[in-house]
Amino acid sequence: MANTKEITVKELNTQKFIEEKAREISALVGSGAAINALSGGVDSSAVTMLGHKALGDRLKTYFIDNGIMREGEPERIVSIFKKLGVRVEIVNAQDKFLSALKGVTDPEEKREAITQTFYKDVFAKLVKESDAKYLLQGTILTDIDETVAGIKRQHNVFEQLGIDPEEAFGYKIIEPLVRLRKDGVRKIAEATGLPESIYNRIPFPGPALAARVVGEVTREKIAVVRKATIIVEDILSSTRAFQYMAILHEDRVTGMRDGKRDFGLQIEVRSWDSIDARKATPTRLSYDILFKLSERITKEVPGVVSVTYNIATKPPSTIEVI
Amino acid sequence: MANTKEITVKELNTQKFIEEKAREISALVGSGAAINALSGGVDSSAVTMLGHKALGDRLKTYFIDNGIMREGEPERIVSIFKKLGVRVEIVNAQDKFLSALKGVTDPEEKREAITQTFYKDVFAKLVKESDAKYLLQGTILTDIDETVAGIKRQHNVFEQLGIDPEEAFGYKIIEPLVRLRKDGVRKIAEATGLPESIYNRIPFPGPALAARVVGEVTREKIAVVRKATIIVEDILSSTRAFQYMAILHEDRVTGMRDGKRDFGLQIEVRSWDSIDARKATPTRLSYDILFKLSERITKEVPGVVSVTYNIATKPPSTIEVI
Repeated sequence: MANTKEITVKELNTQKFIEEKAREISALVGSGAAINALSGGVDSSAVTMLGHKALGDRLKTYFIDNGIMREGEPERIVSIFKKLGVRVEIVNAQDKFLSALKGVTDPEEKREAITQTFYKDVFAKLVKESDAKYLLQGTILTDIDETVAGIKRQHNVFEQLGIDPEEAFGYKIIEPLVRLRKDGVRKIAEATGLPESIYNRIPFPGPALAARVVGEVTREKIAVVRKATIIVEDILSSTRAFQYMAILHEDRVTGMRDGKRDFGLQIEVRSWDSIDARKATPTRLSYDILFKLSERITKEVPGVVSVTYNIATKPPSTIEVI
Repeated sequence: MANTKEITVKELNTQKFIEEKAREISALVGSGAAINALSGGVDSSAVTMLGHKALGDRLKTYFIDNGIMREGEPERIVSIFKKLGVRVEIVNAQDKFLSALKGVTDPEEKREAITQTFYKDVFAKLVKESDAKYLLQGTILTDIDETVAGIKRQHNVFEQLGIDPEEAFGYKIIEPLVRLRKDGVRKIAEATGLPESIYNRIPFPGPALAARVVGEVTREKIAVVRKATIIVEDILSSTRAFQYMAILHEDRVTGMRDGKRDFGLQIEVRSWDSIDARKATPTRLSYDILFKLSERITKEVPGVVSVTYNIATKPPSTIEVI
């Protein structure tokens, strides 16, 4: 089992950490190749930069377009990395993920469907084609805490659960960020030369927008929550919130449009203040901002008649709904 | 069809209105008897006082305990009216309503199940036993507007829908408040001698707590939303809000308790600023109040891990969720 003793942001010497991790990755991979999936979040972006520093072109970085990403995400991320000299290849796997999610309503089963599709189907194929034996992955300490505690099944903590990824999936996983929490990862990302739009980017879950849909995930529901997400990120990006999101509920609620009854959709907005995601409090957004969120969401997202704002802390809530 | 031309609160002469309505009721009922159901809301309370003024003991007032009332409601209301010399009889019909609601998830069908149980079953029986031919009812103008517009099916607007209550249910309905909106009814209630806890009481829906449960209504879910309602009313009663409520959602959301995953319930709190319920805006409650609501609800109501606050206006939302 890997060393998962926490390195606090105080203890962290970014240059030393980056060089150490680059050396470790080089030593492990040797003259072989490695592969990694970039989601555009701060964790996988930092890992991509560490891997690129260690391996150069022997790191193959893929952006898996799983159909549950935010608007314009693949193109945006590829363009950012291109400027840093890192080539990222987009793999369109939308249909595979969406059919794996069909009919699945249980949160754990959703995560599992995404995990299995990602590793066994899409990624296993890429690995075979590339002859890479190593997978770089952006697991951080909070992911492990929550999975071990049984709160959530993260998509990237096989080893901690006693599952051998080589046996199960055919390759070895390297997790260079596993001793850091989110604040430490941001410092590393910044030190690797990533732009602020990445290193200060709010966290985004592994199951992407599928984590923002209560109940079964469909292409239509993803389109709804994607539209609401654009609005929430647009309005809240200037706040100092740790994370913010739109959630599409399955419950239908009564509304009215043009004077007529309209049994419609409800979007829940969450915005969190937090240091490291272990505890979190809803951001004290002004009512001007709350009403702007609600007005734009009900006007611009078809079918939505109701918008709520989360007022529960973590715990007893979690940051994501799923 | 009855005259439903609005009497605004400016035009309203309360003493004149009360005497006129008492005369009308006397003239219609003659030497017979009338019957009415008191829910404890301002509308049915005002009607009870008008009927009592017109008919004295020839008005039989029943409080139907349908099992979906707020905590301690039947006893509290009976005691208030006793002090005013009005006898109210409690009828326990909990089982009838709860079995009529079993398996019903559609909002319209829920309202219909309650309406049918109320009129055809419980009330028809009381009317037959009492020999009353007249039913006094607290329909107000907003109920009619919304029903005619097709936004909601109110429980008391047969005539406006072209249904003859005498033919369908065996008695005639008298609706003395049908030209008033909520603000006018409050003035009438005050002028009849009702205490402020009644005439300034926030509106409460006909389907009672069944309107505060998304999906199927069960005794257990009513118990949950009843507990949350006590907390919301306790904390928000000192605000100047027009109406406030707790709603139990059907969607399950992820939470954590004692460090472990807890897939739990979500309560939505709504608090409305409004003059007459036609348009409404969420109350700008302070975050201290919002966090107090959330903390008490998640601590005191078993199973609840998440609390939201409604931030949408009416329209496009409605005041109630169902």
